[in-house]
Amino acid sequence: ASNKNLLILPGDGIGPEVMREVRRVVDWMDKRRAVTFDIDEDLVGGSAIDKHGVPLADETMDKAMEADAVLLGAVGGPQWDNLDFSIKPERGLLRLRKEMELFANLRPALCFDALVDASSLKPELIAGLDIMIVRELTGGVYFGEPRGIEDIGNGERRGINTQVYTTSEIRRVTEVAFDLARKRDSRVCSVEKANVMEAGLLWREEVTKMHGEGFDDIELSHMYADNCSMQLVRAPKQFDVILTDNLFGDMLSDTAAMLTGSLGMLPSASLGATDETGRRKAMYEPVHGSAPDIAGENKANPLATLLSFAMTLRYSFDMGDEADLIENGVNKVLASGKRTGDIMADGCEIVSTEGMGDALLRAL
Amino acid sequence: ASNKNLLILPGDGIGPEVMREVRRVVDWMDKRRAVTFDIDEDLVGGSAIDKHGVPLADETMDKAMEADAVLLGAVGGPQWDNLDFSIKPERGLLRLRKEMELFANLRPALCFDALVDASSLKPELIAGLDIMIVRELTGGVYFGEPRGIEDIGNGERRGINTQVYTTSEIRRVTEVAFDLARKRDSRVCSVEKANVMEAGLLWREEVTKMHGEGFDDIELSHMYADNCSMQLVRAPKQFDVILTDNLFGDMLSDTAAMLTGSLGMLPSASLGATDETGRRKAMYEPVHGSAPDIAGENKANPLATLLSFAMTLRYSFDMGDEADLIENGVNKVLASGKRTGDIMADGCEIVSTEGMGDALLRAL
Ligand SMILES: CC(C)[C@H](C(=O)O)[C@@H](O)C(=O)O
Ligand SMILES: CC(C)[C@H](C(=O)O)[C@@H](O)C(=O)O
Repeated sequence: ASNKNLLILPGDGIGPEVMREVRRVVDWMDKRRAVTFDIDEDLVGGSAIDKHGVPLADETMDKAMEADAVLLGAVGGPQWDNLDFSIKPERGLLRLRKEMELFANLRPALCFDALVDASSLKPELIAGLDIMIVRELTGGVYFGEPRGIEDIGNGERRGINTQVYTTSEIRRVTEVAFDLARKRDSRVCSVEKANVMEAGLLWREEVTKMHGEGFDDIELSHMYADNCSMQLVRAPKQFDVILTDNLFGDMLSDTAAMLTGSLGMLPSASLGATDETGRRKAMYEPVHGSAPDIAGENKANPLATLLSFAMTLRYSFDMGDEADLIENGVNKVLASGKRTGDIMADGCEIVSTEGMGDALLRAL
Repeated sequence: ASNKNLLILPGDGIGPEVMREVRRVVDWMDKRRAVTFDIDEDLVGGSAIDKHGVPLADETMDKAMEADAVLLGAVGGPQWDNLDFSIKPERGLLRLRKEMELFANLRPALCFDALVDASSLKPELIAGLDIMIVRELTGGVYFGEPRGIEDIGNGERRGINTQVYTTSEIRRVTEVAFDLARKRDSRVCSVEKANVMEAGLLWREEVTKMHGEGFDDIELSHMYADNCSMQLVRAPKQFDVILTDNLFGDMLSDTAAMLTGSLGMLPSASLGATDETGRRKAMYEPVHGSAPDIAGENKANPLATLLSFAMTLRYSFDMGDEADLIENGVNKVLASGKRTGDIMADGCEIVSTEGMGDALLRAL
């Protein structure tokens, strides 16, 4: 096996069709750039439930642990909505994150020049926006114990989840944020509710402490999550890197993504620790969901997934030039006026999922 | 004592100066509308810390329990930021909410016609916006036990909070949301993370169950919190009433408030249960904070506090006509082009806190 071992998990809804466009770009790279990937494909989410009864088979989990990188489409759909909590499509995704220990989720919120008008915000507030959200991904209330629903008598029930962070969990994701900030504008805004939650207070203390341990070239600020959520709407360009926990990151990264008006354009990376051999587990996925309403109609925007593949090249395979190629290709395609339905605008040409793939291949 | 027993807690920062304008309106009502309030004033937050060493004295708590309504300004400021978690200004506010059992926090996000351009969103997305967020206020991760920070050996620490809801806590706030929806557009969107948290799953189940118990004239939908936070930015007018928990409500209500572009305009009400005598504990406060940067400069916008007083009249004193008077007065003042700095726009006249109060009194 080559060292470019990539596991593709298309998932549900529009997942398979957007992933098909990635396969075409991979084929192009095989031919034109003389790089070969060792690609395997498997099921996750609803499609895994239909075949195996669980949203992620153990065998698939094993493959993910072995792969150099995992590229995931999207999971979920109405046909699996009424399943029991423990076997819903989302659990497949959460299991991958947890067992691969992908504690740092990088979610860029970028405004593409050609798409400024797609934002619901006034253009001057959004043009040139470039935020990186670093979301802790394997801790907090998503995985904390105790959790569950219990009977407490008199026909009453109680639902419980636990928000919990240890200092080492906080430190490793903080380091990722500080390192990333150095390659950007060297500013990190750490977000929690330290005024209300002790877990947030510990977060703030530990981030501050670590800042003093060799990161004081970074400009560090702290913000409460409610305020951050307002500031993103009021003046998003004030931010460079936002560092936050799993639950706040879930909401804030979606808000930030929506600000750009082009959710169908945004990739993400989830990274683990670097081991002794320099290897780092990683999974890449578009920020958008499985969009069951347009699945199978060749309408979905494949660019977020293609850009997630570009992130794969950059972060997992040290192929920055190839990543640049794809990213520049995407900008060219947008500049030429090609648009899928989600980002359609006056004077542009509407294209299908495949049509967008064609256009990117031509641009490459 | 009359039955119009009002406790005023101006708090910190701009709290005292905006509250002064309320006192002038109360005086006007005493003279012109032949209603008398029995008003008491006391300390909360930083100002209480300075005097009593705690953010809310027991005596003040007792007064709040006795009052027909509490009107609060704002708490907090940099001089109290480094105090211990347990005695920070915010704890005063949280103690009032908890001991008065104000479980239903009503936060309207209204776009005032005269202020459409103040929004960072495009005008067509925001004109006519009228959302009511009903936030659970005495449960969830704000108050759940166990909580705290503990040493776990090897120099490591762990921060813990507990997200917990019982069915009866969910039911009482759901009832408030359904009742309110009936006086509006009869639509409720209930928001949680039932895909990730069992507490959210219980929330969804119980809201659904209650909907079937005599509320099926209400159109009920469910949304995940991350999606809601996106939808608020994408198309806020899709919502009528949003029902959600304490932590999600904290963020979503701030996002919604900021959408209107006029945070300095938005009031809120926090309500308890109605007792056998028909009495209901209640506290009213502007959504904005204590704005220490402009405190004491006669610059702050008093309208959110004046509108909070209007809500007091409507919800606690059954004085809907007087509430209408104030609300119409505010619209008149805005239409006349008077603006404090926070909502200033081209072609308008800038006025001070007191100048805004003058203008409102003239409009009345
Ligand atoms: C699908 C869901 C479990 C997931 C999350 O809540 O993390 C999604 O919203 C995300 O942000 O990737
Ligand atoms: C001041 C703070 C404790 C409070 C909260 O988090 O509830 C505030 O943000 C609010 O929304 O009223």
